[in-house]
Amino acid sequence: MNPVAGLTLERMPLYLKYLRSIPDGISLYISSGAIASAVGLGEVLVRKDLAQTECVGRPKIGYVRTELIAAIEKLLLCDREKGAIVVGAGALGKALLDYSGFARYGIKIVAAYDNDPEKIGQSIGGKPVYGIDELTSVSEKFAVICVPASAAQEVADRLIRAGVKGIMNFAPVQLKIVDGVKVVNVDVAANLAVMAAALNQNI
Amino acid sequence: MNPVAGLTLERMPLYLKYLRSIPDGISLYISSGAIASAVGLGEVLVRKDLAQTECVGRPKIGYVRTELIAAIEKLLLCDREKGAIVVGAGALGKALLDYSGFARYGIKIVAAYDNDPEKIGQSIGGKPVYGIDELTSVSEKFAVICVPASAAQEVADRLIRAGVKGIMNFAPVQLKIVDGVKVVNVDVAANLAVMAAALNQNI
Repeated sequence: MNPVAGLTLERMPLYLKYLRSIPDGISLYISSGAIASAVGLGEVLVRKDLAQTECVGRPKIGYVRTELIAAIEKLLLCDREKGAIVVGAGALGKALLDYSGFARYGIKIVAAYDNDPEKIGQSIGGKPVYGIDELTSVSEKFAVICVPASAAQEVADRLIRAGVKGIMNFAPVQLKIVDGVKVVNVDVAANLAVMAAALNQNI
Repeated sequence: MNPVAGLTLERMPLYLKYLRSIPDGISLYISSGAIASAVGLGEVLVRKDLAQTECVGRPKIGYVRTELIAAIEKLLLCDREKGAIVVGAGALGKALLDYSGFARYGIKIVAAYDNDPEKIGQSIGGKPVYGIDELTSVSEKFAVICVPASAAQEVADRLIRAGVKGIMNFAPVQLKIVDGVKVVNVDVAANLAVMAAALNQNI
């Protein structure tokens, strides 16, 4: 399979969430136009994106919905179990450990790490909490950083040394990362500020 | 001031976080090259972005760091208080109510709404939790949706009727939104899946 462009990959969950939200039995087929209008994107773009999957649409009829779901799930490796760890078992870390939505994408949060002696040894959402010093080598390729900003870079360095390849960072700092490791930053406060500034311009 | 392009606005927190992270007294000036290398973007792009602020760099010297911080803060309206509410006082909602990082962007989370009688009337992180039925008209322009996927569209509709203009959505569904309202989706599981698929292509 040819590599799929990053932006195309990023849009796949949009399509998947919409396709999964259609109740079974409503309709066997779904057109690219219907998908485009539901997710708020242009039909040409949607058709191009979906052409990157293994599912082939039929002219004037569309895609078989269940086939398209399966093809997108395959592209997103939903059928392959991907282990992930959470670093920082504070309020946000706990929310992630309790969250049940990972399984639909084949992601399995297996453990948390923290430096608080009161948390170490506990179990949250059925997952063990280990001491951060024990984070030396992990088989999991993904991690979510939920520690305060001041500790985030140190944690990221440790994760990379331990073998992690993909990091989702909730700490409000720009992490310095080596080549070959991917980072997605989620900064709720910054996102709200950008949204406010954008809205203000429209007024 | 001319409108600033969306993508330029979205990069402003990157620059701001880096500039804020430099300890005071280290250096009065900062060059666009130093900023570009720190945030991992091209220097031409960084210089173009920063030209959208009121701060003017000096050739071969750079920007006065504190002036550049102030100019970006102005662009992001950090000096203007922006009220926001949280809907859903579960684990994630609680984490947001307790989070102290909003103030640096002028964002003030003022209250939470939930449908759980045990939570209504309580105070989390010093903010009151109201019943979802009381969410009829709010002066806050921003909201964060932290409810389960099944309730998210109904909550979004209610928020828009109540006057909210910007929504950050943590529920894993694609919301249908009217014109004039902005939505930013944060789907941790989907983001991890996209990261995994992108990494897999590079192997």
